[in-house]
Amino acid sequence: MPLSKAFYPDSVAVIGASADEQAERVDGWLGRLQESGYKGRLYPINPRASQILGLRAYASITDVPEQVDYAIITVRTSLVPGLLRECVSKGVGHVHIYSGGFAESGKEEARRLQQELADAIKGSNTRLIGPNCLGLYCPASGLSFSYGFSTEPGSVAIVSQTGSAMVRFVPLACSRGIHFSKVVSYGNAVDIDSPEFLEYLADDPETKCIMVYIEGVKDGRRFLNAIAKCSSRKPLIILKTGFTASGARAISSHTAALVGSQHVWQAVFKQTNAIAVETFDEALNQLVALRYLSPPAGRRVGIVGLGGGHGVVTADLCEKEGLQVPFFTEETTRRLEKMTGLAVGRGVRNPAEMGLGMTGLYKDFADGLGIVASDDQIDFLLIQLYPEGYVRHWAGGNQMEQALDVIITAAKSLPKPLVMVIGLGYEMDIMGVTLGAHKRCLQSGLAVFSTPEAAVRAVAKLIGYYENTEPEPRELQAEASQQRRVSNMT
Amino acid sequence: MPLSKAFYPDSVAVIGASADEQAERVDGWLGRLQESGYKGRLYPINPRASQILGLRAYASITDVPEQVDYAIITVRTSLVPGLLRECVSKGVGHVHIYSGGFAESGKEEARRLQQELADAIKGSNTRLIGPNCLGLYCPASGLSFSYGFSTEPGSVAIVSQTGSAMVRFVPLACSRGIHFSKVVSYGNAVDIDSPEFLEYLADDPETKCIMVYIEGVKDGRRFLNAIAKCSSRKPLIILKTGFTASGARAISSHTAALVGSQHVWQAVFKQTNAIAVETFDEALNQLVALRYLSPPAGRRVGIVGLGGGHGVVTADLCEKEGLQVPFFTEETTRRLEKMTGLAVGRGVRNPAEMGLGMTGLYKDFADGLGIVASDDQIDFLLIQLYPEGYVRHWAGGNQMEQALDVIITAAKSLPKPLVMVIGLGYEMDIMGVTLGAHKRCLQSGLAVFSTPEAAVRAVAKLIGYYENTEPEPRELQAEASQQRRVSNMT
Repeated sequence: MPLSKAFYPDSVAVIGASADEQAERVDGWLGRLQESGYKGRLYPINPRASQILGLRAYASITDVPEQVDYAIITVRTSLVPGLLRECVSKGVGHVHIYSGGFAESGKEEARRLQQELADAIKGSNTRLIGPNCLGLYCPASGLSFSYGFSTEPGSVAIVSQTGSAMVRFVPLACSRGIHFSKVVSYGNAVDIDSPEFLEYLADDPETKCIMVYIEGVKDGRRFLNAIAKCSSRKPLIILKTGFTASGARAISSHTAALVGSQHVWQAVFKQTNAIAVETFDEALNQLVALRYLSPPAGRRVGIVGLGGGHGVVTADLCEKEGLQVPFFTEETTRRLEKMTGLAVGRGVRNPAEMGLGMTGLYKDFADGLGIVASDDQIDFLLIQLYPEGYVRHWAGGNQMEQALDVIITAAKSLPKPLVMVIGLGYEMDIMGVTLGAHKRCLQSGLAVFSTPEAAVRAVAKLIGYYENTEPEPRELQAEASQQRRVSNMT
Repeated sequence: MPLSKAFYPDSVAVIGASADEQAERVDGWLGRLQESGYKGRLYPINPRASQILGLRAYASITDVPEQVDYAIITVRTSLVPGLLRECVSKGVGHVHIYSGGFAESGKEEARRLQQELADAIKGSNTRLIGPNCLGLYCPASGLSFSYGFSTEPGSVAIVSQTGSAMVRFVPLACSRGIHFSKVVSYGNAVDIDSPEFLEYLADDPETKCIMVYIEGVKDGRRFLNAIAKCSSRKPLIILKTGFTASGARAISSHTAALVGSQHVWQAVFKQTNAIAVETFDEALNQLVALRYLSPPAGRRVGIVGLGGGHGVVTADLCEKEGLQVPFFTEETTRRLEKMTGLAVGRGVRNPAEMGLGMTGLYKDFADGLGIVASDDQIDFLLIQLYPEGYVRHWAGGNQMEQALDVIITAAKSLPKPLVMVIGLGYEMDIMGVTLGAHKRCLQSGLAVFSTPEAAVRAVAKLIGYYENTEPEPRELQAEASQQRRVSNMT
């Protein structure tokens, strides 16, 4: 049974749908699929109900009068093997086992039960996802593993051992304009493991960028080949955990191969040009950079905006992450000095504090952006804004709007990419303005981050990725114009 | 003239107060001092006004009919030396020169003007702060260098070369319940340099914790002695910039001594037990840890809350920063397994996912906290909450309240310190709930952070600091009870 049929099933059965309709609507899989707009045929399976949430219920999957492409098993652990055997005899295409309490619990009896799962599908055409996982999210087909997930399809795919972290990650990403083709939480991987999902996604035309969250792998060779295949075709972000003893101990997994061998993994990242990240936040920022930023021609950044200490700290961060903050050319400095709005003593070197400080925007700030962007020494611009002052004391959110008008307009014609940092603040009135500014940047196709660390790290890794990428795949992700990119990868 | 008189002046003159009262009220130094509640006598100096903002104005500082303790010069650069000479002849105690455009501009004429400042005070009793800086913030006396700064005094002092970064940092810190005894932005340091401020603050009974933002030092030996003196008496956080070539270039300072020599500085941090940080965000998180967290007895953390991938990533982060995430003892595991609310398959090792996941709180969660806290292998608890699910799908903000009720109540009786991580989210409805939860934690005396990275790094450095501190100063900061600590350092 091809994986495409798991992501796009014509019929789905929920084995263990609750006869308590309120519970099923609020926290059940049937409720989830109805909310997410699944358009195929839905079959609740429950021996003690004739109808659930407006759908005819069946006592057993074997009673369903047609072929079932996809079944979700959500019952207590001890019942799972028997119900899985029924799915096999019915010839169900893919079975997702949500129930946990198998090998990850570390108990001998639970291991035995997990072995029963493997035995049940042996020699059959039924494929297994899980157990102990959330399964599949595919907005284009209406499959979802959480309430409230976006129904808008996109081009990012995730293969993740963990499910709960994805319940947070997916909405956070969607809030930043990143939407998904397919997300997989595959758990204990009794049957389908990460390499098989990756091989599929490497070929998937709906997927233009892949992220992997991985704790351990069983078949190291196959996994390496799969990520090499993916990363030769599209950007691949890997969040590998368990490098430290504490991390490895924390992984409730019995899959030992390669876990903890950081050197092997670093070699893998290097050979395959995969983008290694260490936290979910970093993964998210990397997706933002990939989604919104045209690849800069080089590593030389012109820092613009609030200067002083913020400028110096950001310059240090840039170099620590492998970027450079060169002096502007003499001509640039001379032209910046001539700007009428430039207060005495403001920086005209790099970082440039040219009229976009705490107190707002000078009228010729747009000219200043153009001057810096045309400097031969500069490959891209980083604008830092910490607009608390705009909100609290001066002209309210209005100055923020005004600054964004100028920046967004300028970005369309600047010859070089532009990265935004807008600090979010720590009070609701500030956050209202700054988060609004973030959203406006994203809607305008500008990469925006909350801290200079986040921005600098993501951009440095993005540049590293493109430096080591062959021209062909580069074209997949990177269009010359940021505007075009926005419609490209969503 | 002792520095105490600069922080607590009986009279302040503002040289260059604007006759345009609206401008002066919105962005002038007179307006700032009136807003911040300065209680002493205020003298606007302006030859073209007889009265400004209800105060009698004088044409020159020499016309003021009494001794002036503190004068702020805010006029264009070329006029500054002449006005400073008038201050000297008047015998003003301390002069703060706000005006910039001196040596930091890199221009020969500007350097010459700066030399005139040094010459003007030579042999006099007048001391100089600046030029090119924001001067002093001392809420207890009503001195302030920005609008909207808190008027509540506290026990943290900052010595900072940069001013603009402090305009953001101070309100951010106050939002997290950290208040200030004295904040100094000292700029080009023609006269009073960072060592002198540090020596003063080491002896200052109002100051229990010091933070330094430093770009370069002139007298390396004196600076080292000053930070050694400070850090032998109170926690000292140092944000040293200019370690990289880009950072050093970005420093618009002509003070070269020690800049860029990272090895020297690392030796300094080590010898003096100063807490080195790399960004303003990190400095802020470190202040939160110092302010709210009783020092754990050791480095072994019990991770509680949303487990799965979040737990594993945080365990990795812990070990990278020098903490440990050991297995619980067998007894702890057995006791956690017996908890009735514990769903099958949830983690009972470490991290423990004991009923505080995406879907809310189990009734015996408080018992679980107690069980983990009493484990011999554990020195402190870290609770991770990513409550998007509470807000969006389940019971609204209510489950967050419920979880906090349990945690805050438990924290009062737990035998070990507790660190909170509550992710802020990226939509206003989520942020409303999560920021509210942050505020509630802070008000209850709990250290709370937005990301596991921030928490783990700050706590690891806090533990490192206390490990290397003699018992006496330890008592200054660390009371056994978190409740007592709250009233201790504010």
